[in-house]
Amino acid sequence: MALLSVAEALARVIEGLEPLEAECVSLNLASGRVLAKDLTARLTQPPFDASAMDGYAVRARDVAQLPATLKLVGESAAGAGFKGRVGTGEAVHIFTGAPVPKGADTIVIQEDTVTTNDAVLIKDAAPGRHIRPRGQDFRKGETLLSAGTRLGPRELMLAAAMNHAELPVNRKPKIAILATGDEVMPVGTELAADQIVSSVPYGLAGLIEARGGEAMSLGIAKDELESIVMLARTGSAADILVTIGGASVGERDLVASALKDEGLTLEFWKIAMRPGKPLLYGRMGSQRLLGLPGNPVSALICAEVFLVPMLKRLLGLRDESRPEPEAVLGEALEANGPRQHYIRAVSEWRPDGERVVRPLPSQDSSLMAALARADCLILRAPEAPPTPAGARVRIVPLD
Amino acid sequence: MALLSVAEALARVIEGLEPLEAECVSLNLASGRVLAKDLTARLTQPPFDASAMDGYAVRARDVAQLPATLKLVGESAAGAGFKGRVGTGEAVHIFTGAPVPKGADTIVIQEDTVTTNDAVLIKDAAPGRHIRPRGQDFRKGETLLSAGTRLGPRELMLAAAMNHAELPVNRKPKIAILATGDEVMPVGTELAADQIVSSVPYGLAGLIEARGGEAMSLGIAKDELESIVMLARTGSAADILVTIGGASVGERDLVASALKDEGLTLEFWKIAMRPGKPLLYGRMGSQRLLGLPGNPVSALICAEVFLVPMLKRLLGLRDESRPEPEAVLGEALEANGPRQHYIRAVSEWRPDGERVVRPLPSQDSSLMAALARADCLILRAPEAPPTPAGARVRIVPLD
Repeated sequence: MALLSVAEALARVIEGLEPLEAECVSLNLASGRVLAKDLTARLTQPPFDASAMDGYAVRARDVAQLPATLKLVGESAAGAGFKGRVGTGEAVHIFTGAPVPKGADTIVIQEDTVTTNDAVLIKDAAPGRHIRPRGQDFRKGETLLSAGTRLGPRELMLAAAMNHAELPVNRKPKIAILATGDEVMPVGTELAADQIVSSVPYGLAGLIEARGGEAMSLGIAKDELESIVMLARTGSAADILVTIGGASVGERDLVASALKDEGLTLEFWKIAMRPGKPLLYGRMGSQRLLGLPGNPVSALICAEVFLVPMLKRLLGLRDESRPEPEAVLGEALEANGPRQHYIRAVSEWRPDGERVVRPLPSQDSSLMAALARADCLILRAPEAPPTPAGARVRIVPLD
Repeated sequence: MALLSVAEALARVIEGLEPLEAECVSLNLASGRVLAKDLTARLTQPPFDASAMDGYAVRARDVAQLPATLKLVGESAAGAGFKGRVGTGEAVHIFTGAPVPKGADTIVIQEDTVTTNDAVLIKDAAPGRHIRPRGQDFRKGETLLSAGTRLGPRELMLAAAMNHAELPVNRKPKIAILATGDEVMPVGTELAADQIVSSVPYGLAGLIEARGGEAMSLGIAKDELESIVMLARTGSAADILVTIGGASVGERDLVASALKDEGLTLEFWKIAMRPGKPLLYGRMGSQRLLGLPGNPVSALICAEVFLVPMLKRLLGLRDESRPEPEAVLGEALEANGPRQHYIRAVSEWRPDGERVVRPLPSQDSSLMAALARADCLILRAPEAPPTPAGARVRIVPLD
């Protein structure tokens, strides 16, 4: 079987995936969600010409000659504006955020004044200063956040300021996780000599939730068709079913045959990728299957490379046309083979801010401790030539 | 009042903050939490010499001369190892992850063999290959994750593999958020002419939750001492009380006086920082007060600069000695004044991976739409000289 490139496999995996249906969520539950529709302002901000400082609202003409003494005729506070009009020779005491009264066109800051009873002495002033004009931030009807935006702190604050108490977001993708293997036992169990702990589902669930999906664990299937089928069915409500292990075509690799009987159209690829050669992919109705290799490091890196882009599509997240960041190689790399290599590496930062990356000594795809120590993956293209220390390389930062 | 530097203010704000008490959480609820104690492996991984491939377990001496025909004496599957011993001239069919039987020291991969009834023809082999020795990943008792580690996907997977079903993590810091201002109304309200929407609490809550804290909103206090005191009391269980607005010393700025009556030891600083000059800080028993300015952009940037480090301390998160990243200036900057400036900027990525940053045209601290458009802040030191386009500058990436 010929090796499929990572790019080709990825294109096929995300093909036809569309954002999930929109739902309305309260603003205080919208953090991290993805906007389903463009959001327009329900008001103009600021809604009035507002003072940017504590001080006095005056007419520019009255402070052209300094010092000047003006008559104090009232006060404009935030939430309680001055109802009258500032006439010639008059001033209104004003606070930050308060509406600039009619007639006034300049704010004199507190520090540049001396107040005596019902008069104020203006020592310094700049005509037209310290006013935030109505609509300076945004105007009613303006589109300020577009569909496909992930809602972080700044977007949530802006959505609130636009007076949206609820936001339309795309539903979170549900991802079911099914571990397989007679030797695989639940975490916390006392293990027999030939057993290991089911660890990959916890890594996958963490990744899925950090990326905006909803993870559901279906447990551990035995290496038997019935066991796989039975547990897979409990995840039928999921948008994607992710299996771990049994993804190859060995006689112990039962995921493909088990799920074929369930009506899945299955494809099996050997990907030109290290770690993580075998990958199952298929569709059953609207559900997608992604069969990851059983080696923990392979599984998690394959999830990063294939599952995360699937999630982004279902979330409706806008494509960022941002290249992978670069770093400086701390030591030489040998020529690469025919597979794209994701080399586990650790970084140091030079005083000039440059990131220097060094591969971990062992790259075996079963080493979870080494993966946890790594803070990035160095991306090596298939057949890349030997690369000297000091060269710039593309990396995938981890977490 | 002299301006306090950002670094000095920060040192005083985080002074004496210690990680909160540890609590035990189930592994599937531990994503994003911070380990309270070093974690040691409860088992050795792999627990036995394991095959890295599907194939045949043989003795190296028997495959020194090739081709060789060996007698098939059994099978070793994952979870069901071969109980006997591989003798001279013998082979055991073996699957990926299965224990290497006694006597065998080499795995011959499936593709290099031809099987006929009870014999297997070995066409190619490399002595000692394709075996993952017991303990290659980690050994029982080894410390693999240290206190202060944030638990991401890789750490969760490793903790599971170490057979920990529960993890000791530091309690999440509770942060109470109190907006103030007669003009400030809840989101979704029909507004009168001189009112604005309470937007900052949503930005703060998003920031706090993304950084591992628990946000609780106390609502909006009127510009009256009693209103501030009453609402602040409802947040007495919080580790930090964050107020928004009224943080200056104007006659409308009541937060300081209201909370002094509650027994707070208050400090007020003007920080050499743009945006965000006035900052209230204080202690009442074990609760800290952080009084942010009312301008939305100032409030959110001050939270990034002061609140996030407080959160990290309470979370017990290990310090990362990583400098702020650098980027290339897309246009010249004028000389800076006496305050550290956090310039809102947008980035483009050059094909060589370099990030080019350009300041947004308006830097007014009330512009939420501009803040949402920005993707980083350019850090300008106090009194920085004019800086030409093409120079490298430090940035704070946003989100």
